Amino acid sequence: MRLTIGIDVGGTKAAAGVVDDKGRIIEKLKRSTPAASPPETEQVIADVVTELASRHEVAAVGIGAAGFIDGTRSFVLFAPNLAWRGEPLRTSVQEKIGLPVFVENDANASLWAEARFGAARGYQEVFLIAVGTGIGASLLIGGDIYRGRFGIAGEPGHYRVVPDGRLCGCGNRGCWEQYASGSALVAEARDFARRSPEGAMRLLQLGGGTPEGISGPQVTQAAREGDPAALRCFQIVGNWLGQGMADLAAIIDPGCFIIGGGVSEAGSLLIDPARWAYERSLPGRGYRDFADIRLAELGADAGVVGAADLARRFVAAQA
Amino acid sequence: MRLTIGIDVGGTKAAAGVVDDKGRIIEKLKRSTPAASPPETEQVIADVVTELASRHEVAAVGIGAAGFIDGTRSFVLFAPNLAWRGEPLRTSVQEKIGLPVFVENDANASLWAEARFGAARGYQEVFLIAVGTGIGASLLIGGDIYRGRFGIAGEPGHYRVVPDGRLCGCGNRGCWEQYASGSALVAEARDFARRSPEGAMRLLQLGGGTPEGISGPQVTQAAREGDPAALRCFQIVGNWLGQGMADLAAIIDPGCFIIGGGVSEAGSLLIDPARWAYERSLPGRGYRDFADIRLAELGADAGVVGAADLARRFVAAQA
Repeated sequence: MRLTIGIDVGGTKAAAGVVDDKGRIIEKLKRSTPAASPPETEQVIADVVTELASRHEVAAVGIGAAGFIDGTRSFVLFAPNLAWRGEPLRTSVQEKIGLPVFVENDANASLWAEARFGAARGYQEVFLIAVGTGIGASLLIGGDIYRGRFGIAGEPGHYRVVPDGRLCGCGNRGCWEQYASGSALVAEARDFARRSPEGAMRLLQLGGGTPEGISGPQVTQAAREGDPAALRCFQIVGNWLGQGMADLAAIIDPGCFIIGGGVSEAGSLLIDPARWAYERSLPGRGYRDFADIRLAELGADAGVVGAADLARRFVAAQA
Repeated sequence: MRLTIGIDVGGTKAAAGVVDDKGRIIEKLKRSTPAASPPETEQVIADVVTELASRHEVAAVGIGAAGFIDGTRSFVLFAPNLAWRGEPLRTSVQEKIGLPVFVENDANASLWAEARFGAARGYQEVFLIAVGTGIGASLLIGGDIYRGRFGIAGEPGHYRVVPDGRLCGCGNRGCWEQYASGSALVAEARDFARRSPEGAMRLLQLGGGTPEGISGPQVTQAAREGDPAALRCFQIVGNWLGQGMADLAAIIDPGCFIIGGGVSEAGSLLIDPARWAYERSLPGRGYRDFADIRLAELGADAGVVGAADLARRFVAAQA
């Protein structure tokens, strides 16, 4: 049994893990990454691999990155929330570490992990929606990751839900991730606190007295305590989430949606209003089946486990 | 070489053709269909098959219908613009004619024809957008029609593009087909004529003097003559079409869009503004490839040819 390393690279930190063929993490490390500097991020990746490979016999490295990855799984073409533009991530890291490297979109890596070891087991057509700062997403078709013609399918975070809507990091306006993400949740809470400080008393208390101090986990905490303002924020964001899932079902008709990402840790606070909006908005409702809606099971480890397993599969296919 | 019959069933008429294995139509018939009565429509289908089968040796019948078809290709679950709700179309027709019957979404049938014999040849990932009264659509993945978990993938005509937007036949508001279809083109032209009769003089002239008299082909005719009001209508509808294609590309990343349906006969009048909006709106533009945008090649025959060829494939797979 050979081990592989999976790395999940986000805007501010990278998690790396040595993973076996059952999806178990043998050892895990975390590092900060400078979002603005691709070369420094690549050095961080190389260093953490070198450290892990000194203690384990490793066959390959999989990198899950929050960006559009090209069809050859080598380049980060574009990352809406990172500085990568046409970055040859695979070659750069491979030259530094001397191991086969496989680059994948981070949401694709997470979905692969859920399909192999988690909540998506047994489904053939699955849409993963990772609700974090933005929306990461990935699509399983026929039991395999679907990548599209140019490698970058499954980016519904940037389909337009509001004409002339909120400005997005991708440069467009009205993108879904500006309405159904953790950022949107925080924006709603802060806006609430600005417009109606009395109604948002608990949120302001948790945020240290100012709207700008309110964070996502604090909105979740207040909602768990039953605070009406915080619950309303989850309803608004959950409603946008469910409407988007209905749109995706009209286009893709999946058997299951997996809801992951940091905000999904709020569980039914997010899922219940999303399910309500999905079922109310699905075109042809009453004459068709609803997709299952399930919470991701592998949590923050999904990206590491999936990237490692995809790297294992990649070298096996090449052998 | 065996022949099969393909039938394209719309809201007001059905076209039936005897088709050979090269996609050539040997004989074709047209009939009126009463949209409000599924049993009468089924009798029309049975009669036209019986007539054609009396003159040709036919192995199977494929029906392309404008509705959501279930995963077994037997039922019309729901048709936004027809009276069919959970209609067992396959069994009903099969009992009447004594030949194997295969039911398919009409846009799926058209895309299959374009993939085998028309504009989609050589592509593996294709989105067909049929711009008619509404929007029919179909998705080719890995060279095959993608049907989703429950058989009804590829209905982007009913994804929401405007919150609380125009009411749609499906019961929701703001569906894409209310903005990027032939109906939308006519609605824009009539609205123009109501608000600014002087600016829409040519449209009113063609429409017999009243806004309600203006028809889709008349808008196309006026635009071909260079009438600014008619050109503006095509720009508005083309803009919605291209924005939607950018949204679909964010989700599916196809190699090619095929634009078909009655309105596509306007050619560059529709395609040029659509391409402009698509290229301006595509998330990650500048860092990724644009999909090809091509006009359908088989015109109004695509549904008949595709349904017949799918029926041929269906009986071959069962043999």
